[in-house]
Amino acid sequence: MTETRWSHLTAPELRALAARDAVVLLPVGSTEQHGAHLPTGVDDFLAAEVCRRAASAAAGRVPVVVAPSVWCGLAEHHMSFGGTMTLSLPTFHALLRDVCRSVLRAGFRRILLVNGHGGNVTALNALVGELTAELSAPIAVTSYFTVGRKAIREALETQQHLMHACEGETSMAMAAFPHLVREELLDRAAGPATELQSEDTRPVQRFVPFEDVTGSGTAGDARAASAAKGERMLRGCAEALAEQLAVIWEERR
Amino acid sequence: MTETRWSHLTAPELRALAARDAVVLLPVGSTEQHGAHLPTGVDDFLAAEVCRRAASAAAGRVPVVVAPSVWCGLAEHHMSFGGTMTLSLPTFHALLRDVCRSVLRAGFRRILLVNGHGGNVTALNALVGELTAELSAPIAVTSYFTVGRKAIREALETQQHLMHACEGETSMAMAAFPHLVREELLDRAAGPATELQSEDTRPVQRFVPFEDVTGSGTAGDARAASAAKGERMLRGCAEALAEQLAVIWEERR
Amino acid sequence: MTETRWSHLTAPELRALAARDAVVLLPVGSTEQHGAHLPTGVDDFLAAEVCRRAASAAAGRVPVVVAPSVWCGLAEHHMSFGGTMTLSLPTFHALLRDVCRSVLRAGFRRILLVNGHGGNVTALNALVGELTAELSAPIAVTSYFTVGRKAIREALETQQHLMHACEGETSMAMAAFPHLVREELLDRAAGPATELQSEDTRPVQRFVPFEDVTGSGTAGDARAASAAKGERMLRGCAEALAEQLAVIWEERR
Amino acid sequence: MTETRWSHLTAPELRALAARDAVVLLPVGSTEQHGAHLPTGVDDFLAAEVCRRAASAAAGRVPVVVAPSVWCGLAEHHMSFGGTMTLSLPTFHALLRDVCRSVLRAGFRRILLVNGHGGNVTALNALVGELTAELSAPIAVTSYFTVGRKAIREALETQQHLMHACEGETSMAMAAFPHLVREELLDRAAGPATELQSEDTRPVQRFVPFEDVTGSGTAGDARAASAAKGERMLRGCAEALAEQLAVIWEERR
Amino acid sequence: MTETRWSHLTAPELRALAARDAVVLLPVGSTEQHGAHLPTGVDDFLAAEVCRRAASAAAGRVPVVVAPSVWCGLAEHHMSFGGTMTLSLPTFHALLRDVCRSVLRAGFRRILLVNGHGGNVTALNALVGELTAELSAPIAVTSYFTVGRKAIREALETQQHLMHACEGETSMAMAAFPHLVREELLDRAAGPATELQSEDTRPVQRFVPFEDVTGSGTAGDARAASAAKGERMLRGCAEALAEQLAVIWEERR
Amino acid sequence: MTETRWSHLTAPELRALAARDAVVLLPVGSTEQHGAHLPTGVDDFLAAEVCRRAASAAAGRVPVVVAPSVWCGLAEHHMSFGGTMTLSLPTFHALLRDVCRSVLRAGFRRILLVNGHGGNVTALNALVGELTAELSAPIAVTSYFTVGRKAIREALETQQHLMHACEGETSMAMAAFPHLVREELLDRAAGPATELQSEDTRPVQRFVPFEDVTGSGTAGDARAASAAKGERMLRGCAEALAEQLAVIWEERR
Repeated sequence: MTETRWSHLTAPELRALAARDAVVLLPVGSTEQHGAHLPTGVDDFLAAEVCRRAASAAAGRVPVVVAPSVWCGLAEHHMSFGGTMTLSLPTFHALLRDVCRSVLRAGFRRILLVNGHGGNVTALNALVGELTAELSAPIAVTSYFTVGRKAIREALETQQHLMHACEGETSMAMAAFPHLVREELLDRAAGPATELQSEDTRPVQRFVPFEDVTGSGTAGDARAASAAKGERMLRGCAEALAEQLAVIWEERR
Repeated sequence: MTETRWSHLTAPELRALAARDAVVLLPVGSTEQHGAHLPTGVDDFLAAEVCRRAASAAAGRVPVVVAPSVWCGLAEHHMSFGGTMTLSLPTFHALLRDVCRSVLRAGFRRILLVNGHGGNVTALNALVGELTAELSAPIAVTSYFTVGRKAIREALETQQHLMHACEGETSMAMAAFPHLVREELLDRAAGPATELQSEDTRPVQRFVPFEDVTGSGTAGDARAASAAKGERMLRGCAEALAEQLAVIWEERR
Repeated sequence: MTETRWSHLTAPELRALAARDAVVLLPVGSTEQHGAHLPTGVDDFLAAEVCRRAASAAAGRVPVVVAPSVWCGLAEHHMSFGGTMTLSLPTFHALLRDVCRSVLRAGFRRILLVNGHGGNVTALNALVGELTAELSAPIAVTSYFTVGRKAIREALETQQHLMHACEGETSMAMAAFPHLVREELLDRAAGPATELQSEDTRPVQRFVPFEDVTGSGTAGDARAASAAKGERMLRGCAEALAEQLAVIWEERR
Repeated sequence: MTETRWSHLTAPELRALAARDAVVLLPVGSTEQHGAHLPTGVDDFLAAEVCRRAASAAAGRVPVVVAPSVWCGLAEHHMSFGGTMTLSLPTFHALLRDVCRSVLRAGFRRILLVNGHGGNVTALNALVGELTAELSAPIAVTSYFTVGRKAIREALETQQHLMHACEGETSMAMAAFPHLVREELLDRAAGPATELQSEDTRPVQRFVPFEDVTGSGTAGDARAASAAKGERMLRGCAEALAEQLAVIWEERR
Repeated sequence: MTETRWSHLTAPELRALAARDAVVLLPVGSTEQHGAHLPTGVDDFLAAEVCRRAASAAAGRVPVVVAPSVWCGLAEHHMSFGGTMTLSLPTFHALLRDVCRSVLRAGFRRILLVNGHGGNVTALNALVGELTAELSAPIAVTSYFTVGRKAIREALETQQHLMHACEGETSMAMAAFPHLVREELLDRAAGPATELQSEDTRPVQRFVPFEDVTGSGTAGDARAASAAKGERMLRGCAEALAEQLAVIWEERR
Repeated sequence: MTETRWSHLTAPELRALAARDAVVLLPVGSTEQHGAHLPTGVDDFLAAEVCRRAASAAAGRVPVVVAPSVWCGLAEHHMSFGGTMTLSLPTFHALLRDVCRSVLRAGFRRILLVNGHGGNVTALNALVGELTAELSAPIAVTSYFTVGRKAIREALETQQHLMHACEGETSMAMAAFPHLVREELLDRAAGPATELQSEDTRPVQRFVPFEDVTGSGTAGDARAASAAKGERMLRGCAEALAEQLAVIWEERR
């Protein structure tokens, strides 16, 4: 299997990939509380996992490099639970700008940020325009759960979309890093359902500390999780992302 | 009719309103190209218009003040058409922070940003969390076309939601400031339909110069516009916003 | 009468004005306490009013566009009165830079900031050099009460120059927006006289909270105000500004 | 004679002065072209000279410390002549803030910035309010040629106030650092007269490169300069500043 | 073996560790060219590897958490080789400040940055004072090759200290992630020797593009590398770091 | 003797020096407590003194200009002693950038920062790379006590390198500005020895308030100081710096 991770590749290999106009995926995650049964790195791990799978799935058709993941995002709403890291918006902006600028200076021309954290979605959508203007280069963004929303919906039983430390995230964790799931705590891992951010129909948006949503740090019902479901979701998300990579590749002509 | 505009009120009157815990609406618009038939101030004028109507509608139930409108937002995607102003995201952030801080220092405790420009939506949603943390005060945001989406949908014939310089915006302009509509240019005021931003189902987001969407600067079909439709939309949006004001007012107990 | 307001014009009309090398006036005001008898928007309204009148007066000779007004300036010294908005100097700088940059990107080459607030004067004079260097374009600044100081002096009876919520500002308010003047409170609208900022002869400058000057928020004697005086002042200021527009226009050759 | 220079004093001596509530003078100059006959440090040297003389004159009545001088200010308009240093406004702001904060942290409570460069005047007046708010401490500013304007006018023959590398500045240079005056070039050291900045009656302000004023870098006529005049001016400015120090000292009660 | 990685731990587990006053190690690396035989992630991987080993070694004596690694540092001097990421100093500063602030807000009180990249050393030493002042909390910094310099010197045959992609780094890579070493390219992996940064005796420091040092991207001689040496070095560095953890732990009494 | 001080030179003289490609020395000092026997300006005075001597020593071989000294650096660790000024790292960075940019705009191409304060060393080393990238010009840095370390070591009896207000600094102060040394306090001017920063072998770096090192503000033993030693040190440092100037001059070919 071809290596696609930037940090696992050598500089000459990366120069060769830049010369082939490879697409660079930049996973953007978060390090934040995910209830008592999941590790704090879930959003980061899943974004990177889907990127690596998509890069493999696209191999042969589209040259792809997966940059190291931005493991810290916007998680102020989880801070009261402990175990959580967060950046201010200006720092998040500066970090993404400098990383994207480095990627461009390394000779690549196509960057797709692949987000894994609901709390980053609006900021990333806002920053895409800003980064495009600042760097005079096309920067695109998606979330793995947006590109793969169909696969996610089909695999889930108790919910329609990802919530937080829920059936979906727990299933994918069981598939991708089962040793990090505290299965013995799963039977209490349930909380109220939340809306998918992009389907949020509340007319007024405001900052909501996650503790106001759920005291346990879990939204949705993780008790229904299984590694098999998780594998289906990850595969589906990766395939959907690989399709997008093919679209981006076609556009370059 | 009670005056609700901050800039039309005197300082003692505003102090009295702050003492009553009045809700402050901050219209956030944009000054940008709106095709050949609409003035560049449309987004700004409509956000402010809905705010004033909502404040009137809420009068007696909820004390409300309408701040002067932030008439410049994020409109990089319209710059190539000319006639357009835009702020960088850090400037937009700093401006909103300083204005909100002033409102809080004037003794008010409740601020609702009422947006009128699609291009501001994601940034405002991202900034709400940032401002709440920076100012240690609850800052909320909506768009008049989000709070009033039902009324808008019911009034429109050729589209489901607002586009740009479209049946909807043109109708409201005809109702609110008919003298600024170039009616003689209406018969050419049509362009391709665009998605409502919050219903955008494209899996990958990127910066799209509006000229790539429509050469005319118009998205949707303004030929179907009428002042009567516009009046229905404005009234519906204002009533929906007034309802939200009542909700905010109730929460204060 | 020709429309000169940027936000009332369409993008194609603005492109045509840019092609004719029109001068852009950017009113810069403040939203701040003006005693018990005047609305908080006075400085903003008067700066914009003089700009619009000057643009009309110059019509036929000089193409002019009046941008929307920057209604928030530097008013820290009025904050304790309530009803007041203020920006930090870096935010004020950033806002003016982004707006001026937008104007330049829209194809215009000549910008004149027309200030209406004493508290902005020194900052604007300092920023003109900074903006000129940053934008590589000539940015000029005046205050309507500086360009029109002769007309103001001639119209006033109890003072030589504008103070605050005084005979002068109240007269102009009576002429330009009489419905916003609380005439019933006029008989108490008097306070100590203040110096014209640019004629301030105190050898040492320091920050002076306006409450240390006057407990009422009024400096000077508004009881002598009349709409007729106000009309003379506005007309005189507008004519003086129109003359400057003609000078700027001549320089372009 | 008592030592008043901060950098010549020891920390224990400065702590004792802070305990006595000494006033701190911060000279703010510029390092910029001053024609062919004067060194580039003139504005810096003269501001510091007047401060030291004033501190001596006030000795016994008012405890005073003279901080090292900020030798770089805003001199963009002189850059084309070479030999000139300039700061951006944000850097100038940050530098003054950090220095003033240090003075306050060292236990002093009263700071007076004493400027020696016309190009700094408006920025310093604008920054005084900003610094006062940021540091929650009273920061005052003057220019030695403002506080001493009467003495300057009386001593000068060919001009009423300071210009640039003129009769006035050259005379003071001859009195304070005669070895740095290129006397052999004095007979050509003349240029057009300029206005005193604070008496500038031009209705519109804009950035004016000094080369547009004078090709020689000199404004005014230095040929009339003499050390005796310079001594009178320096003494007069120092006495006037000492009087202000006494006023500040009285206010502390 | 106890899990020590922040991102592998759950929020309740991290809260418990904070309650025990655990020391947080923050690996700071770089993603940059490392010749043709080593992956670009070397500095990042080795810093994190030493941290994890040290945390294990300290287990039982000192509770330790290893934060996710900051994989991007200051690598401007490697940019011309391709495959390299770099941050500006202000972005690096902001990122470290926000991450450290998050750690403190999560209840921890002791943070040790463990650097793995020579190009970060001076900046980190400068930032430690700044971060300590900004966050009012003790932030300490070391580099794994500083704390473990004795073990490194003893293991190496062709050099005294780490260079770049050299005998030392290559040996540790062979021990820690052998599958990422391109062994087939090792026989050409040699370049001129460089000084250890902290022993640099050049009297004048300047920015030196690494291409001026070595065209191959390698400094030192990697041909002498072996996994056994690498294991000795890693173990020695980890033990030395564990000793420092014990010192920090003792200080807390 | 040729004048080499920027602020003592005229603009035409500086233009001529720039045309000859003169090297610009920028002394960077600090204004901070130096025990009870030395003035707070020591680090600033000595850096400037060595620069001036080196410029004289190089005269005839290398054209050199000595800029005014940056008398405020990073001295947070001395703040508790009083009498101390400090900048934040961002302000220090901005100040150096603007000054260096001015020097470059004045036509010079070669800048060497000559530091005189131990607390600035790491920051300056970090900033050199940043400034080089920002200004696209080679900026170099040294400390007079680094370039002259051999001469310093040879002259000292009780220490190997400079400490703080020690035998070395006191000796140089006695040689360069004896009137500012409080000799009557010398017999108590002793404190514990400190490491030379660049030879610091502590594996972990952290911010250390200087009061934790020495209650007197003195590190090392100033009682052994003499003007003769100081003169030897200053001469040696200046000669070593002059040699570096010759090297820089040769490189320009």
